[in-house]
Amino acid sequence: MINKLVANIRKTNAPIVVGLDPTMKLIPKFLMDKAVKEHGETMDAAAAAIWEYNKGLIDAIAEYIPAVKPQIAMYEQFGIPGLVAFDKTVKYCQEKGLVVIGDIKRGDIGSTSTAYAIGHMGSVKIGNTVCKGFGEDFVTVNPYLGSDGVKPFIDVCKEEKTGIFVLVKTSNPSSGEFQDQLVGDKKLFELVGEKVNEWAMDCMGDEYSYVGAVVGATYPEEGKIMRKVMPKSFILVPGYGAQGGKGKDLVHFFNEDGLGAIVNSSRGIIGAYQQEKYAQYGEEGFADAALAAVKDMQQDIAQALASK
Amino acid sequence: MINKLVANIRKTNAPIVVGLDPTMKLIPKFLMDKAVKEHGETMDAAAAAIWEYNKGLIDAIAEYIPAVKPQIAMYEQFGIPGLVAFDKTVKYCQEKGLVVIGDIKRGDIGSTSTAYAIGHMGSVKIGNTVCKGFGEDFVTVNPYLGSDGVKPFIDVCKEEKTGIFVLVKTSNPSSGEFQDQLVGDKKLFELVGEKVNEWAMDCMGDEYSYVGAVVGATYPEEGKIMRKVMPKSFILVPGYGAQGGKGKDLVHFFNEDGLGAIVNSSRGIIGAYQQEKYAQYGEEGFADAALAAVKDMQQDIAQALASK
Repeated sequence: MINKLVANIRKTNAPIVVGLDPTMKLIPKFLMDKAVKEHGETMDAAAAAIWEYNKGLIDAIAEYIPAVKPQIAMYEQFGIPGLVAFDKTVKYCQEKGLVVIGDIKRGDIGSTSTAYAIGHMGSVKIGNTVCKGFGEDFVTVNPYLGSDGVKPFIDVCKEEKTGIFVLVKTSNPSSGEFQDQLVGDKKLFELVGEKVNEWAMDCMGDEYSYVGAVVGATYPEEGKIMRKVMPKSFILVPGYGAQGGKGKDLVHFFNEDGLGAIVNSSRGIIGAYQQEKYAQYGEEGFADAALAAVKDMQQDIAQALASK
Repeated sequence: MINKLVANIRKTNAPIVVGLDPTMKLIPKFLMDKAVKEHGETMDAAAAAIWEYNKGLIDAIAEYIPAVKPQIAMYEQFGIPGLVAFDKTVKYCQEKGLVVIGDIKRGDIGSTSTAYAIGHMGSVKIGNTVCKGFGEDFVTVNPYLGSDGVKPFIDVCKEEKTGIFVLVKTSNPSSGEFQDQLVGDKKLFELVGEKVNEWAMDCMGDEYSYVGAVVGATYPEEGKIMRKVMPKSFILVPGYGAQGGKGKDLVHFFNEDGLGAIVNSSRGIIGAYQQEKYAQYGEEGFADAALAAVKDMQQDIAQALASK
C-alpha cells in the first residue's frame, strides 16, 4: 500500500489526504433533514446523513487526491450505525482507487494489538473461511505501550502489505506535555521517532517503508528534525488549515524527491462550504466547495515545494 | 459510577474485575459449532458465539463480582457484528448490576477525544432527541497526547458521572521502552501519574475520584510508588494470573481502607475450563469453571490483603 500511496501521489501531484471527519456541525443541514425524515431522530439518521455527505464528497474529489483519512471517533460517537457508515466509507473509497488511512490511534499489548490490527487491516479465520473486517490500507497507532504494542501491527502489515503511521509528535497544543519531555539529551518524541525508523527499515516497500509517522504541521521545527531521523518513513502531517499550518511551514516535512510526507486537511476541505471563501457554492454545493478547497490546497503545497 | 464501583466491591468483598476478552482460542467449541450451523462461517457466527459465551459467563459470575472489563479489540476484530456483540454485552452486564469498564484505550485531541468520550460514555443530540452510544460506565484512556486528549473525557465524566482509567504503567514486557524513560529525576510514567492525580482531585466522588489509572500487576514496585502519588485514584491492575501477577504482589496497590485498586483477570477466569485445575468442569461447564476461578481469585486477594 505504501507503493500505491506513492503512485497515487505522483498521479495526482497532490501529497494531500482529506480527513473524512463528519461532525454534526459539518454535515449539511439539508442532508440531515432528509435523513431525519426517513429515520426519525436516531443514530441511524446521523449515519445515513454521514454516508450521503461522504459519498458526495468522494464522488467530487476522488480523482484529485491520493488518499482519505476517516477519523473513526467521528463515526464511533454514533454507535453501531456510525461504524456501519465508517465501514461503507472505507470500502467505497477503495473502489474509487483511493488509499484509506483509518485514523484509529489504537494501541494495546500483544494479542490485543493483534486483534486491532487484523480487525482493521487483516482478516480472521472462521472455520475454513477467511473473513475481512474494516479493511483499511493504513491505520494510525499510539506508541505509549512500546514495541509490544506496535509490532503486532507491523506483522499484519508485512502479511497484508498494509501500513501504519505511528504517533510521534501530535499537532495539539499540549502534545509537548509528555512528548517533549527531555530524556537524556533528546525529547521523548525523538526517541519514538528513532524507534519508528528502526521498525521502518525492517519493513520496506519500493522506495518508502510500510511504517510511517505522525508529526503535526503545527510543529515545523520538529518536522525538520524528524525528517532526518526517519528518512524512509512517510510522515502524515495533520494540522494544516483549520489547525493553523500553512504550505510554507510544511516543506521540511518532505524529502528532496518531493515525497515522504502527506498533509491532511479535514474541516478545511469537507467544511469548505461554510467558509466565506467558498460561500458561493452554498450548502447544496458542499462537494464542489470541497473540490475547490482541494485544488487550492494542492496549489499552496505545490508552490511551497517549488520554492523550497 | 466510582461510588457504585466502591459499593459493588464492598458488597462482593471482591476487588476484582473480569476481563471479557473472547478470543477464538477461548470460545468453547460447542458454542462456535452451534453458531456456525446457524450463521455459516461468518463474522455473524463469531459474534453469536461470543454473545452466548459472555451471557453464560455473566449469568454465572455476576453476583460474585463488582465489575467486568470487555476489551473492545477482541470484538472489533470481528467487524460490525463483533461490535454489536460488544454493545449487547455492555448493556446486559449493566442490567445485572455490574459496573462496565470499556477497555478501549482511546485517546486523541480535542473534538476527536470528545467524540470518543460521548460515543462510549455520553450521548449525542439528534434533532431534539438524546441518543446514547455504547454507554460504558468507565473507559480506559491513553495519555500520550497530553491534557488535550484526556480533558474531553473528564468533561463527559463530570456530566455523566462516569469515570476513566488513564494508562500510567502498562503490564507488558516492553512498557518501559517509553514509560520508564528518565525525565529529570523521575520516570515518564511517574509524571503521567502526577498528572492523573491533578485531574483526579478535580473530579471526586464520595471517597475516590472519577479519574483512575492503569498500573500493571507485573510491576508491583511501581504500583507501590503510584499508590502514594495518586491517593484518591482507583488503580485498575491488569496482569494478574495469566500474565504472571499473584495476590501477594498486589497488596501495595491498595490503600489502608482495603480499597483503591481493582484487579483484572481475563483468560484466567473466562478460559478457566481450559486449565488443568478446573478441567473437571469440561467445556460445557465453562461458566461454572469461571465461577470457581472467580472464587479462588477472590480468596487469593482477600488472604493477601488480610496478611498485609
